[in-house]
Amino acid sequence: MSALDAAAAAAPVLAAQPPRERASWLVAAAGALLVAADDLVPLAVEETGLTEPRLRGEIKRTAVQLKLFAEVAAAGEFLDVRLDAADPDFVLGPRPDLRRYLVPLGPVLNFAASNFPFAFSVAGGDTASALAAGCPVVVKAHPGHPRLSDRTAEVLNTALPAGALGVIHGQDEGVAALQDERITAAAFTGSLAGGQALAAIAAARPRPIPFYGELGSLNPVVVTPEALTERAAAIASGFAASVSGSAGQLCTKPGLLFVPSGPAFPASFDAVGPHKLLHPGIVDGYTRRRSEVLGTPGVTVLVEGAVTDDGATPTLVETDLATLLEHRDTLLQEAFGPLSIVVRYTPGEPLGAVLAEVVEGSLTAGVHVAAGEDSPWLHSLVTSLQTLAGRVLFNGWPTGVAVTPAMQHGGPFPAATNPTTTSVGTAAITRFLRPVVYQDAPAALLPEPLRDDNPWHVPQHRSPAGESPSWGSLAG
Amino acid sequence: MSALDAAAAAAPVLAAQPPRERASWLVAAAGALLVAADDLVPLAVEETGLTEPRLRGEIKRTAVQLKLFAEVAAAGEFLDVRLDAADPDFVLGPRPDLRRYLVPLGPVLNFAASNFPFAFSVAGGDTASALAAGCPVVVKAHPGHPRLSDRTAEVLNTALPAGALGVIHGQDEGVAALQDERITAAAFTGSLAGGQALAAIAAARPRPIPFYGELGSLNPVVVTPEALTERAAAIASGFAASVSGSAGQLCTKPGLLFVPSGPAFPASFDAVGPHKLLHPGIVDGYTRRRSEVLGTPGVTVLVEGAVTDDGATPTLVETDLATLLEHRDTLLQEAFGPLSIVVRYTPGEPLGAVLAEVVEGSLTAGVHVAAGEDSPWLHSLVTSLQTLAGRVLFNGWPTGVAVTPAMQHGGPFPAATNPTTTSVGTAAITRFLRPVVYQDAPAALLPEPLRDDNPWHVPQHRSPAGESPSWGSLAG
Repeated sequence: MSALDAAAAAAPVLAAQPPRERASWLVAAAGALLVAADDLVPLAVEETGLTEPRLRGEIKRTAVQLKLFAEVAAAGEFLDVRLDAADPDFVLGPRPDLRRYLVPLGPVLNFAASNFPFAFSVAGGDTASALAAGCPVVVKAHPGHPRLSDRTAEVLNTALPAGALGVIHGQDEGVAALQDERITAAAFTGSLAGGQALAAIAAARPRPIPFYGELGSLNPVVVTPEALTERAAAIASGFAASVSGSAGQLCTKPGLLFVPSGPAFPASFDAVGPHKLLHPGIVDGYTRRRSEVLGTPGVTVLVEGAVTDDGATPTLVETDLATLLEHRDTLLQEAFGPLSIVVRYTPGEPLGAVLAEVVEGSLTAGVHVAAGEDSPWLHSLVTSLQTLAGRVLFNGWPTGVAVTPAMQHGGPFPAATNPTTTSVGTAAITRFLRPVVYQDAPAALLPEPLRDDNPWHVPQHRSPAGESPSWGSLAG
Repeated sequence: MSALDAAAAAAPVLAAQPPRERASWLVAAAGALLVAADDLVPLAVEETGLTEPRLRGEIKRTAVQLKLFAEVAAAGEFLDVRLDAADPDFVLGPRPDLRRYLVPLGPVLNFAASNFPFAFSVAGGDTASALAAGCPVVVKAHPGHPRLSDRTAEVLNTALPAGALGVIHGQDEGVAALQDERITAAAFTGSLAGGQALAAIAAARPRPIPFYGELGSLNPVVVTPEALTERAAAIASGFAASVSGSAGQLCTKPGLLFVPSGPAFPASFDAVGPHKLLHPGIVDGYTRRRSEVLGTPGVTVLVEGAVTDDGATPTLVETDLATLLEHRDTLLQEAFGPLSIVVRYTPGEPLGAVLAEVVEGSLTAGVHVAAGEDSPWLHSLVTSLQTLAGRVLFNGWPTGVAVTPAMQHGGPFPAATNPTTTSVGTAAITRFLRPVVYQDAPAALLPEPLRDDNPWHVPQHRSPAGESPSWGSLAG
């Protein structure tokens, strides 16, 4: 049976399971993943060139993520159960008994990323949230780690129900699956060009489906004059670590650092050695982008770096705001690798408005401030950063994304093709659910979460009859 | 200033307002609408041909809807504020302070419908929910009621902030607005062809935006053998009222009634006189669809009806399940007008599975059951109806949609282009919001809803540090 056949057959089975049952096998799958770490991590090192410590951390994070989504499933709040009691005296006329909850969309297609072979791949976030929602998942494996993808699925499938997780390989197979009418939603983490092509295919289906793409991000960070005075060296070293970690192959790598004009920025990349890039496509793309940036008039080199057979070492350049705006078509494009641009600005100029105008939607935007710093300029900057990003962070670096209820990983296009959801954090479960309401249903025919005796013990939010609207108090 | 210029200028102003302030002007706008009813309703009668009682009810419903969304705004729960405390001992490593809420997307383009000149037009649901979310709205007026559209906007604008609501006219102007980069989301209620064309334009933008289309629905209703035995006459008269109300020009009109084979179905349309259709385009489309249905082999006429200069009288035909399947390309298309198809089925056959297979996504699906009726066949039917619809209703008729917290108006394509949201009911506000998280922000730089002193008095959901994950109890 093909992965799609199996997923289609599993969909009604998973949908009918109490969320606590889903939670049990998600926890078991997380356990199986950790038990297999000594088998999987060396394979990941071999296929991706990422370091063993990084991959050990990532597999643990991935297992914990599965468990967090198990918790979300078991808690049942994600079902968003709303029970409106029948009300013959409702302000709009008699109101029926209405009981609403969220149901799984059905089989989900997940295009895996190259740069997180665990956390954004077969066992990654979109898989965890879709399974927790009750959707079978078909993963289109990334060609950068095909054997790891198959092996990961084998490990997880020792714990998962039949058909809940399948893996397919190949670009044509991925496109065919995206066009298959049994697929009800798709998620993608990868390049702008690839994501736009897949989004267009999803939109052109006879029956279009939700497509959640994360396509790239510049992640601008602003350093205020006061912050630079307070702690230039600490900022420079934190920046260097964030740009060079995993050879800059992170969607949250800071690609732009805005520093007030003045003394030389103390770039501190000396200790960073070469790091392998993930696959030849990234070597090509990064080499080309790096050459474009280095060849742009008005750009000076702070740290030249290189791309060799041993891998890449970081490249840091500097320019000013006027040059950035003049050459925005070149300089305001993501370089997926260890390159970043220091942009000098004049204190007091309306930097926030300029960034909101010219920087495309970004996963993150950051600002470094001095202790107790506050000013209208700073407030305006923060408001502008919010308009262009899904995460606004202070006195830190965007790489490293916590998996928590409040996390938001997404943003205006192209950070995300749909800015209303997240791909990291437990709120991601809503991507793969749709609301259904039951009207005047006899008790015996209600789904479990909507019944008054609440056999699944899920939270139920009730709007009783006779609640008197309070809008009179809002007038004036 | 153009409507788009004004909306773009208003966006940051509205976004910065406390939701209670938005609520105040929404309530004032609702009041202005009711005060102007004697002015607006005659204009609506003249332009649409709908009856005065229907339109008096609709304008009241529309005003109440604005007030309900004012309540939703004032309550602040829609902001979905999540505060994760910093936690140095978090299971995945040190967790930063994360504070998430939902912010307005920005200017929203709303394509008005013809059939609800108040409730799905300038002052309608998508306008109310977008304004409550803090988004300025540009309405592309429906050509069926252009003067009413302008006049409604004038009335509302006596109460709304500058730029919060504008109206544009013309198909080319609508498309140009949909392509304008300042528009951040669009909503549409109308035909399948029109909605698909607009959805494609939204998807093909350099920066795609969320597009919420409601494109059509067959709204199948099943009568069980026991229900028919219990109350055939009552079912027949309720069905007649639901098919013929507003000349069937409702997205929730029951287009298919599945009745067990047996004695003649007691069709009771005798008392229904002619009712004007909304505009010439609907006359043409309905006349063509009616001819196609009447000309299909295996279809017999129960009530012939007609389309004349006085309007339309209902047409009811009968066929069997085999004929429906054989001619699905003709019979399983929406007829926007007072036509419905009675389909005879053989008791015991797997009707639910057949419907889930052949009926496209639908706003509603209904079933009439006898008191206390219960069987595996019935459970299977209900499960199937859930897979194809956003609302599953019992012993009632789909026309008439309550505006409540639990209502769901949407469903799998083509009922909706995006099945994860609703266009009716207070949950609709989420269409026009996106999440933003603040990480480690100094208190002085936090937006009001995220501050510990909570100056807007909105609900805040906290995840304290040191919460011990409970997934150990989920294992096994």
